Amino acid sequence: MGHAKASGLTLDDVTPGQSFTSASHAIDANQIKAFAREFDPQPFHLDDDAAKDTFFGGLAASGWHVAAITMKLLVGDAAPFEGGVIGAGGEISWPKPTRPGDVLTVTSQVLEVTPSRSRPDRGMITMRSETRNQRGEVVQVLTARLVVPRRVEAQV
Amino acid sequence: MGHAKASGLTLDDVTPGQSFTSASHAIDANQIKAFAREFDPQPFHLDDDAAKDTFFGGLAASGWHVAAITMKLLVGDAAPFEGGVIGAGGEISWPKPTRPGDVLTVTSQVLEVTPSRSRPDRGMITMRSETRNQRGEVVQVLTARLVVPRRVEAQV
Repeated sequence: MGHAKASGLTLDDVTPGQSFTSASHAIDANQIKAFAREFDPQPFHLDDDAAKDTFFGGLAASGWHVAAITMKLLVGDAAPFEGGVIGAGGEISWPKPTRPGDVLTVTSQVLEVTPSRSRPDRGMITMRSETRNQRGEVVQVLTARLVVPRRVEAQV
Repeated sequence: MGHAKASGLTLDDVTPGQSFTSASHAIDANQIKAFAREFDPQPFHLDDDAAKDTFFGGLAASGWHVAAITMKLLVGDAAPFEGGVIGAGGEISWPKPTRPGDVLTVTSQVLEVTPSRSRPDRGMITMRSETRNQRGEVVQVLTARLVVPRRVEAQV
C-alpha cells in the first residue's frame, strides 16, 4: 500500500476517546422500499399498509439498510483513516426502527487502538458508531473492528 | 399480529441445533460496484484497477453488501420464522473477501431459544449464519438475535 502520500489518519494518529461526526442522510419511503425489494423483501419494509399489522406497526427500514447508510456516512467523513474504512467485523444492534422521513447522522468514538503483533505495518481500531435520527434517538449502534495502517516512520 | 394463520415456525417449533440452508446468490462486478457507489464508495469496491493497490489486492464486495445478500437468502428460505426475520442485533465478521464471480450460500444453526419474561407472545432466537462461497470458504459469520412470536396456544 502506498503510505508515502498519506492523507488520512494512521494508527499512530489516533487515540482512544477521539470522536468524529458525520454529515447526515435523509431516508424516505422510496429508498426503504427499493433496498427491501433487492435485499430484504418483507412486508414491513415494502408496503405501508401491510406494515401496519406487523411487529413494526408501520413501514420501517431494513436494519441492513441502516447499516449501509451508516457506512456511507462513515466513508464520507466520519472515519477518516488512511487506506479507507476496512471493517474486520463488529457488533451491531438496532434499538429503534428507522422510519420514512428520518434524517440520520453518525457519531463515532475510538474505544481502543491496538498495533498488530505480527504485522508492523498495521493495527486494529475499535470504534463505536451511534446512528441517530433527527430526534436524537439512537437507531443503530455499531462497535466495529477496523484495520488501519501504521505511519511509515513508525514501522521500525 | 395475526398468528391465527401461522405458516412459519414459531418460537415453540424451534430447538437449539436446528439448521437451515439457503438458496444461492451469484455476485458479479456490476453488483459489487453498484452497491459500493450507493453505500460504500471506496476504491477496492469500485474499480478493478484501483483495487489492486489496496488492502484487498483486487475488487471485493463491501461487507455490508455481503450482509445484505445474506439477509436476502435468509428471508428467502433459510430462516422460515412466523412474522418474518426480525433482527434485534448481533455479531458480524468477514473472515475473507467476497470477489466477483463468487456464489454465496448461507447455512444457519439455532444456538439458543429464549422465551421473553415480560412478553408472553414472543421470544428471542440466537442463530449463527455462515455465508460461504463456492469453494466452501466462510466469507461472513453472523450471530444474530431474532425476535420470534410464540405459538398462540402456548401463550398462557
